[in-house]
Amino acid sequence: MEKSYCLKFIIIISIAVFIFAYSRYPPENLGCSTSTPPWCTKTHRKTNLRSTSIFDSGKPNSNHYFADTPLHPLDPLTIPEINKVRSILTGYEPFSSTFPSINSLSLDEPEKIQVVGWKTGDPFPLRRASVIAFLNGQTHLVTVDLGMGLVTDHVVNTGSGYPMLTNDDLATALQLTYSNLEFNKSILARGVDLNDLACIPPSSGWFGPDEEGKRIVKVQCFSNQDTPNFYMRPIEGLTITVDIDKKKVIKITDTGRGIPIPKATHTDYTYTTKSPFYDMDPMTNPMSMEQPKGPSFTINGHIVKWANWVFHLKPDIRAGMIISQAMIQVKDGEYRSVMYKGFASELFVPYMDPDQSWYFKSYMDAGEFGLGANAMALVELNDCPRYSYYMDGVFASANGRPIIQPNMICIFERYAGDIGWRHSEIPLMGLDIRESRPKVTLVARMAASVGNYDYIFDWEFQTDGLIRIKVGLSGMLMVKATPYENIHNISNTNDMTGTLVSENVIGVVHDHFISFHLDMDIDGANNSFAEVNLVKEETLSGQSPRKSYIKAKRKIAKTEDDAKIKLKLYDPSEFHVFNPSRISRLGNPTGYKIVPSGIAASLLDLDDPPQIRGAFTNNQV
Amino acid sequence: MEKSYCLKFIIIISIAVFIFAYSRYPPENLGCSTSTPPWCTKTHRKTNLRSTSIFDSGKPNSNHYFADTPLHPLDPLTIPEINKVRSILTGYEPFSSTFPSINSLSLDEPEKIQVVGWKTGDPFPLRRASVIAFLNGQTHLVTVDLGMGLVTDHVVNTGSGYPMLTNDDLATALQLTYSNLEFNKSILARGVDLNDLACIPPSSGWFGPDEEGKRIVKVQCFSNQDTPNFYMRPIEGLTITVDIDKKKVIKITDTGRGIPIPKATHTDYTYTTKSPFYDMDPMTNPMSMEQPKGPSFTINGHIVKWANWVFHLKPDIRAGMIISQAMIQVKDGEYRSVMYKGFASELFVPYMDPDQSWYFKSYMDAGEFGLGANAMALVELNDCPRYSYYMDGVFASANGRPIIQPNMICIFERYAGDIGWRHSEIPLMGLDIRESRPKVTLVARMAASVGNYDYIFDWEFQTDGLIRIKVGLSGMLMVKATPYENIHNISNTNDMTGTLVSENVIGVVHDHFISFHLDMDIDGANNSFAEVNLVKEETLSGQSPRKSYIKAKRKIAKTEDDAKIKLKLYDPSEFHVFNPSRISRLGNPTGYKIVPSGIAASLLDLDDPPQIRGAFTNNQV
Repeated sequence: MEKSYCLKFIIIISIAVFIFAYSRYPPENLGCSTSTPPWCTKTHRKTNLRSTSIFDSGKPNSNHYFADTPLHPLDPLTIPEINKVRSILTGYEPFSSTFPSINSLSLDEPEKIQVVGWKTGDPFPLRRASVIAFLNGQTHLVTVDLGMGLVTDHVVNTGSGYPMLTNDDLATALQLTYSNLEFNKSILARGVDLNDLACIPPSSGWFGPDEEGKRIVKVQCFSNQDTPNFYMRPIEGLTITVDIDKKKVIKITDTGRGIPIPKATHTDYTYTTKSPFYDMDPMTNPMSMEQPKGPSFTINGHIVKWANWVFHLKPDIRAGMIISQAMIQVKDGEYRSVMYKGFASELFVPYMDPDQSWYFKSYMDAGEFGLGANAMALVELNDCPRYSYYMDGVFASANGRPIIQPNMICIFERYAGDIGWRHSEIPLMGLDIRESRPKVTLVARMAASVGNYDYIFDWEFQTDGLIRIKVGLSGMLMVKATPYENIHNISNTNDMTGTLVSENVIGVVHDHFISFHLDMDIDGANNSFAEVNLVKEETLSGQSPRKSYIKAKRKIAKTEDDAKIKLKLYDPSEFHVFNPSRISRLGNPTGYKIVPSGIAASLLDLDDPPQIRGAFTNNQV
Repeated sequence: MEKSYCLKFIIIISIAVFIFAYSRYPPENLGCSTSTPPWCTKTHRKTNLRSTSIFDSGKPNSNHYFADTPLHPLDPLTIPEINKVRSILTGYEPFSSTFPSINSLSLDEPEKIQVVGWKTGDPFPLRRASVIAFLNGQTHLVTVDLGMGLVTDHVVNTGSGYPMLTNDDLATALQLTYSNLEFNKSILARGVDLNDLACIPPSSGWFGPDEEGKRIVKVQCFSNQDTPNFYMRPIEGLTITVDIDKKKVIKITDTGRGIPIPKATHTDYTYTTKSPFYDMDPMTNPMSMEQPKGPSFTINGHIVKWANWVFHLKPDIRAGMIISQAMIQVKDGEYRSVMYKGFASELFVPYMDPDQSWYFKSYMDAGEFGLGANAMALVELNDCPRYSYYMDGVFASANGRPIIQPNMICIFERYAGDIGWRHSEIPLMGLDIRESRPKVTLVARMAASVGNYDYIFDWEFQTDGLIRIKVGLSGMLMVKATPYENIHNISNTNDMTGTLVSENVIGVVHDHFISFHLDMDIDGANNSFAEVNLVKEETLSGQSPRKSYIKAKRKIAKTEDDAKIKLKLYDPSEFHVFNPSRISRLGNPTGYKIVPSGIAASLLDLDDPPQIRGAFTNNQV
């Protein structure tokens, strides 16, 4: 890979989750009073306060997507552009008689070389849309040239090719379930009122040739009687397998009728007077991050400028957020390239229960459901601090028409009370040194509510050049119903696939593996990857009172295979991406260190179907 | 260890540091204007603003240490108490003729059972002081009973027993160096003006029987000509070995005269008009965490109450901060015990260079220098946000008299713009759910400036019961001078023990291992430790389309040896501390999960002297 012109690699950041039940404490309880003093910057209730900020008074940033042309070559398709693509497709065979279902319709990004060379005022590189459309059992991959108004490329896949599930696909699966006689009989036999039914259409994983080329979902249901938190009330053992493409129920598994539906008691998490947390309120006084002169970033369309950083930020239906062309300014004003593109590439969640109703749970939350598609509007002041700027997502729905996902991303400056750098001298040295600089960073945030879980993605930029990616996990557990109410009634606790977290409720063991695609362009595209291994060296006899010391040995990857890294705790390495052609005054190449964090290994069999599909978790880098 | 009545264990949190030089960016640069608007809550200049807060108006919290008696059995010795101990020792043989050097003089804490049983208003358990004193080559371990005014216990160590180095000890080492003829000759021969000399007295590690029972320091010097940052200007190869106890120079190593002293250019980090960072200022607008009703914690002496937490916090000369009796309040108002005692127990920093002037660098920053002894006053508004409460340290100096270390710890509420918990439902489910709670935490912070490095210790408390310990590393690198100015002049880069970070400056490879002592008392002292191993299980043929899944297998430690854990990335475990006698309504014991973070392994030979001394890094838990 040395001297290659494109270095892309994947970092697996994993969260190994295992549930350990102890006393439950209420979540944060800092409600403000009902009158809204100017200081009351947090509330648990949804607020309609739109912070009036510099963004509203200046350029109408939020309206750029109504324009015919975007502001930057990487900007997502605007509303008129999406409409134009739809109109081109409507007139194009084979879609002119029946309009297909649109699984994905988004910008086909221009080549890197065109984007990097582009400057404001230059003519735009060709605007192209990449469309995945499903019609009559076939998937069409279509490229539309917006300038020429023509389809310029068209590939047909036999079988579905597993495009992302659209909301229409999911709604179809639910409709087929609700209208199925056998399903309804089972629900009534279980004593559930049909009005209390909440069903979800999770994907079915992939379990070998039988499911090849098909899009299967496995509908499972819950009772939402007396609670908005239906996830805690699973109707265990009832699984309706639906072929989305053929629009048919293909199998019903109906076991576990003896397992009671867990009770609704104490499951309501909403912040109302009924909440068990309400009377503990308030535990703390109001508090907020204040910026009397406003935040110091500016946003023009999708270009974010802050301190010494500039980057392009856009919502994406699959990846959620994409950061492009991140550059940092050095002393003489020059912007130096750091990263061409970075985004979450996949989120793999295998559950660890071999049961009929659980074995298939091995979700690919980005590829199957879309992190952007499930990124609901952020709650102002609670999800993001005051002075945040909110960016909307503009996507195409299944019928090819534009939809706006409002307030999908927030951008804010963070001062967390932390220290950026400090040094004091002890009095012995005779120097009165008390230097300290507070730390302020810029954060771009999104929260994807993929079913029961809410993933909070933060990209944080520091003035010293560091980029930090954080993923937070919130929401509720996906739980399994069980006959047991107390662990002392369980005859063989070894059979348990999780922990009893409430009466009749098991939190099943599972993992969350998150991988990121980072296309680093440090001072240009000519980047190399080096593994710097820390190796014990023995001293020679008589050389030193020390017997051993550690040396850093650098190995530059020659192929992509060389850069597949399995981390080893007792044979540690660092990972450097550097530009061999940009040399500092000391002769060192410029570069970044990649620091994987929260690392974990998948323990599944390499030939287990979920692991074959999630094979990117075989290595951590 | 099951059903033991005291469970203490140590978590090793390690920071493996290896230096990779790329372009240097300025630290945070958010200076406020010279006039000080009420909003300007950050400045790079030292500020004398003492925040006028609720603490100044109410009870005179900061004066409790002038009182004859403390407020709580765990409170540090007050100023009158230290004076009383000194006066008792003055009248006690063998100290009545010559007062010894006091290495340590602090509270001998009462037994846990007495402390736990004590309530406000109860008579105090006996107040005792534990003293380590050095006189005529012998170390005396003395216990003084303050009530009776008597020495109640006295053990004499032949040889020093390695007590902590006092400031007087360190000053003696420097004095011996400065007055040594051979040293002065070498300095002049190297062309250094004696007025530009800055010397530090680092400890010498321990390298076998020759150094047994002695306290040795190895003085090394720097030039502070044209810079306050003398650390960047080492006088390489000159090491003066001093026997602190005998007050004698025992060896001078004088090599490396051909190695130039690195230049001062661009090493001044102070925030002045001369600073290279000054003209980039300001990169961002002023920003602060504001609390119009003030913070919601109260501090009475050393008792901190916040939200549902209460704990005892005190400065300690060795550990820096000690958190005791941390308890959390549950819904019915009852406080439940979580942790009896927690503190940083050691900080081991082995450098990886076998050279004469470097091999011995294997510092124990807590045990040798004292994290508290080196915790200088925090810089208000820069080190800690507005509305912080500052706690002073009261210690005994080498002459046994009390000294106040002002503003040594700060306590503040943190709102970092983060989300405590959230959940949204996608529109498909037909529920308009947008729940989100902001996250507010309480932080106790201290920064220990141990020579060139500043360690920032944060203990963070969350309302959901979580306690997070964070350690930040700041300050400057300890660097080595080299003849090389550019890596292209280095004949054999394999000989390098670090990276060239500036002309004539090498950043030497080293580790920072930090261990914590956590005496967990979850719902009382009857706690057990369990390792929960995640194990791959294979499914039986025909049982499931899955081939493998992961199960959690719990093993309760029977002895302390069982609880010595070497972490394994591919054989992962969780660590639970639980109370088998306090059972939830589900039958589960109450407990906490211990999550080691930033883990690393020491790669040194097990029989290498630094590793023998730092053997606590052999295991991570």
